[in-house]
Amino acid sequence: MKRISVYQVSVEFGDCDPAQIAYFPNFFRWYDASSRKFFIDCGVAPWRELEKTTGIIGTPVVEASSRFILPTSYGDTLHVHTSIDEWREKSFVMTHALRREGELVAEGRDVRIFAIRHPEDSARIKAVPVPEHIRRLCS
Amino acid sequence: MKRISVYQVSVEFGDCDPAQIAYFPNFFRWYDASSRKFFIDCGVAPWRELEKTTGIIGTPVVEASSRFILPTSYGDTLHVHTSIDEWREKSFVMTHALRREGELVAEGRDVRIFAIRHPEDSARIKAVPVPEHIRRLCS
Amino acid sequence: MKRISVYQVSVEFGDCDPAQIAYFPNFFRWYDASSRKFFIDCGVAPWRELEKTTGIIGTPVVEASSRFILPTSYGDTLHVHTSIDEWREKSFVMTHALRREGELVAEGRDVRIFAIRHPEDSARIKAVPVPEHIRRLCS
Amino acid sequence: MKRISVYQVSVEFGDCDPAQIAYFPNFFRWYDASSRKFFIDCGVAPWRELEKTTGIIGTPVVEASSRFILPTSYGDTLHVHTSIDEWREKSFVMTHALRREGELVAEGRDVRIFAIRHPEDSARIKAVPVPEHIRRLCS
Repeated sequence: MKRISVYQVSVEFGDCDPAQIAYFPNFFRWYDASSRKFFIDCGVAPWRELEKTTGIIGTPVVEASSRFILPTSYGDTLHVHTSIDEWREKSFVMTHALRREGELVAEGRDVRIFAIRHPEDSARIKAVPVPEHIRRLCS
Repeated sequence: MKRISVYQVSVEFGDCDPAQIAYFPNFFRWYDASSRKFFIDCGVAPWRELEKTTGIIGTPVVEASSRFILPTSYGDTLHVHTSIDEWREKSFVMTHALRREGELVAEGRDVRIFAIRHPEDSARIKAVPVPEHIRRLCS
Repeated sequence: MKRISVYQVSVEFGDCDPAQIAYFPNFFRWYDASSRKFFIDCGVAPWRELEKTTGIIGTPVVEASSRFILPTSYGDTLHVHTSIDEWREKSFVMTHALRREGELVAEGRDVRIFAIRHPEDSARIKAVPVPEHIRRLCS
Repeated sequence: MKRISVYQVSVEFGDCDPAQIAYFPNFFRWYDASSRKFFIDCGVAPWRELEKTTGIIGTPVVEASSRFILPTSYGDTLHVHTSIDEWREKSFVMTHALRREGELVAEGRDVRIFAIRHPEDSARIKAVPVPEHIRRLCS
């Protein structure tokens, strides 16, 4: 049984574009918020706490994709159902199902790494192996 | 020879997140701005003009993806190189190469349709065949 | 007794900037979402419905201001307390108190109009007198 | 003679809302980008460099306001004309005139501080006196 975390989205007027529908880059914002909630729900400390103890600054996205199935607009309440579908050595795959009541509005998938600041250049980041205690909390 | 359009991005402080790097949903905003510029550069009228004559309200994205290769932060000047890689009957595929000087920072790809408002429900949209005169302008 | 509507905000990682705090233009997004909720809570139809019957496309902001009192960051849950403080002939004044538990995080104020599309140029908008039935619903 | 810095904005489809006009919180993003450009144009180092030498993480906004005079929409090219109107001991006042060719589209004003991380709690920030060398560069 894999863990699923659910994040609620209220689609706002300001999320919509002149075509009257939610502007698609916002879907990635919602997937990302749901990703963070997933880790919090699993008991992982907020990134700013984790940085102090492990140097990890978050889980930057190295690949992201989405299919947009139904339009959504302001006034809609949506739910993102997020889970981890695959653990790799230095990355992991998250999937997001965005639902409005019974309907599937969109589906997202992203590949993320656990990152620390690059020891030689703080403007760069560096992948580290998935920390074992985090993997255990999330499984 | 396919047409390529170039859109310039100035990465701003407000585009960056607590990890000090540009927040990834913004890349999709930049690809989308470059997509609109592509059509303008080809001589297609702005969507709001096109709607009056053809009912077309724009080119909603039905699939979008990106690989994020190098981090970027405020102060960087980037260029999105956008082209159409494939025309299908009711959709088309755009690709976006995001560059900082010589380096490839990210690569995006989206599948888009030409849409009109749904005749029976203005909250919905409906794909129409790619208009021949637009395809000619963009080829 | 004036009506007060409360809108809940979950501050997300993507709302924060490299200083690790919520980026200030987002506060105006939150005030605006709370403004829309205020009208819905009062029983006013969504703008897209109202446009069909009255031509009104929303309540564009003609002036907006905010004081930022305490920083807030991802993981915080905030509440915007919104009310109408003054009705004028063609505009009205809304105030927004953004709270985190007992604390006042920020205070906003905006002047808004009820707008229709300009009859001679659909790219422009035009203020109309505050509709009496809306004023009654909101008082 | 006070210094004026000019920042160019290309209004995008994704900056606009269902009323077809630029969504007002974006104006504050543009003012803020112009504010950062002002300091760069004056020869002040980027915040991430300044933090290393002075601890200063930027110029958080403590008050912001704007009047919105004319609507603007995608396809418009705008220019923000930014200057510092007043230096106070621990803050300063910036004004922004947003223009489209000859026309004034909006006017903004913000009060900002120079901030460092709070020595006792890195989640908080703390105002410091305006650094004399920065004031000199900007005058």
